[in-house]
Amino acid sequence: MSPTNHQVRLASRPSGLPQPSDWSFTEEPVPTPGAGEFAVAISYLSLDPAMRGWMNAGASYIDPVEIGDVMRAGAVGEVIASEHPGFAVGDNVYSDFGVQEYALSDGAGAFKVDPSLAPLPTYLGTLGMTGMTAYFGLLDTGKLKESETVVVSGAAGAVGSVVGQIAKIKGCRVIGIAGGEEKCQWLTEVLGFDAAIDYKNQDVRRALREVAPDRVDVYFDNVGGEILDAVLTRLARGARIVICGAVSQYNATEGVRGPANYLSLLVARASMTGMVVFDYAPEFARAMSEIAGWMGEGLLISREDILEGGISAFPDALLKLFAGENTGKLVLRI
Amino acid sequence: MSPTNHQVRLASRPSGLPQPSDWSFTEEPVPTPGAGEFAVAISYLSLDPAMRGWMNAGASYIDPVEIGDVMRAGAVGEVIASEHPGFAVGDNVYSDFGVQEYALSDGAGAFKVDPSLAPLPTYLGTLGMTGMTAYFGLLDTGKLKESETVVVSGAAGAVGSVVGQIAKIKGCRVIGIAGGEEKCQWLTEVLGFDAAIDYKNQDVRRALREVAPDRVDVYFDNVGGEILDAVLTRLARGARIVICGAVSQYNATEGVRGPANYLSLLVARASMTGMVVFDYAPEFARAMSEIAGWMGEGLLISREDILEGGISAFPDALLKLFAGENTGKLVLRI
Repeated sequence: MSPTNHQVRLASRPSGLPQPSDWSFTEEPVPTPGAGEFAVAISYLSLDPAMRGWMNAGASYIDPVEIGDVMRAGAVGEVIASEHPGFAVGDNVYSDFGVQEYALSDGAGAFKVDPSLAPLPTYLGTLGMTGMTAYFGLLDTGKLKESETVVVSGAAGAVGSVVGQIAKIKGCRVIGIAGGEEKCQWLTEVLGFDAAIDYKNQDVRRALREVAPDRVDVYFDNVGGEILDAVLTRLARGARIVICGAVSQYNATEGVRGPANYLSLLVARASMTGMVVFDYAPEFARAMSEIAGWMGEGLLISREDILEGGISAFPDALLKLFAGENTGKLVLRI
Repeated sequence: MSPTNHQVRLASRPSGLPQPSDWSFTEEPVPTPGAGEFAVAISYLSLDPAMRGWMNAGASYIDPVEIGDVMRAGAVGEVIASEHPGFAVGDNVYSDFGVQEYALSDGAGAFKVDPSLAPLPTYLGTLGMTGMTAYFGLLDTGKLKESETVVVSGAAGAVGSVVGQIAKIKGCRVIGIAGGEEKCQWLTEVLGFDAAIDYKNQDVRRALREVAPDRVDVYFDNVGGEILDAVLTRLARGARIVICGAVSQYNATEGVRGPANYLSLLVARASMTGMVVFDYAPEFARAMSEIAGWMGEGLLISREDILEGGISAFPDALLKLFAGENTGKLVLRI
């Protein structure tokens, strides 16, 4: 009996939140590697807000997923067959293997991960693209300096929770914006943020006046929308806004809401800069080592929110992300 | 018979375009300088889009004009009486003397100008704050590099026309966005811009695809609104947007329109940075010398649009600016 590879493919481009009809479920025989290739059995899939953008047509920082294609996803898997000199059966590997149970790879963009150093899901989060995004967005794009005031939105999410902890390690005052009391408590009591603002129950602009009396030097924005506009009113002179994402806008059906307070950039002589993590690929190894060091010293906590259910649970898992139901990195076990 | 000083004061804060009732006309005796002061008879007043912002309450990069105050304005005037060791009767001086016929100064922020080197109105434009804004916005905030593609909006205006000419001097491809065929012809035929887009009669986004096939490296934005959104769709990798102003939004009564396409900053790894010319005051003399040199070599043309009518013409003159009726620097002769 040859095993079957179950897959989730993009069936149509969503308007607003992805619907069940936007996906199709297919199955194929497990692929056999050709020369220079290897096959993996996927263990964990990464769920990322950016996935929603990949489902749209048109030019972006990465090609869109085409209709009929297996949905793109970062994943870790174990090599089950290999004709590639760099990857042996039994190796654990990260790559954008896609939403399926098995995948082929020629090794491009793939790297081996060590489950004895950290649990596999961590390589999708803090020691993966999530951690890299936080690290380079904050330190390079955000040009973080010691003892500055840092605000991060989506603060209890995968990227935001790492951003805030790195900023604390760098000696900054850190304020997280998140939805709900439980997340906010986690930020201040477990992660050591200086303050947290619950945007579902607080006026963000007013709360910022209280917890950031010296205004905001670096704002790491994962959400866009009203929260971006609120922080724009509290910028310090020379502030840097890192545009990492805009999860509040990805499913907007009436067009993205632009930041109406953008002229605050002028008043504050501030900047707003976009970043894409893939640009930093040559420096990933160095950054991962540094983050792993902080984890080892107990300075940085990695939290993964692991969903069960395999491939068929993917559509609902993605919606949890947009509903803000996760704390830490949302991962689907295959 | 002692001469009278006619003044224009802010009577109320406008909603939308300033109305006649937002101004009051007053008169006072011409002031007499005390120790360390001098008095000027104002010759020319500068009209600037930024004036609209100064009329609003609330914190900005400069204090608002208070109700009942003489309206703030840059101006050049001739010293008619002096108790100040640095300024003698007959000197021509620039300062923010305000919308009036005579003014007192203690010399703070005032500097002498030489009418034998350039006509007095030029010191309100290309050799004044306008030219300084163009120079530092483009070269410092915009980090202009040789042979890049530069787009400037409000291109036939005071700042825009200088921005484009400096970019040409620096060896760049320059595209101006302006309203009307006549302005566009002036940009390409007289100022030497490589292309001009008439936003009143062309689709800016489509036109940019044609005239900026390699996309846009530096966008100097004077207008905001739809034009900012159009240029955001055409950014080159690593593009810099200079936020100098947003004349299309200053009179908005339903809130500023934020740039809905700001997520292009992420796709292009681009930045949007605000600038305020006053920050560069220590370097004004150097920049003015360089601009004067370019003017002397015939590389940079300064154009002033001089209105007659004195103080009482000020309210209408300001509206001409927001209607886009000027080409070059709008100045009111007193």
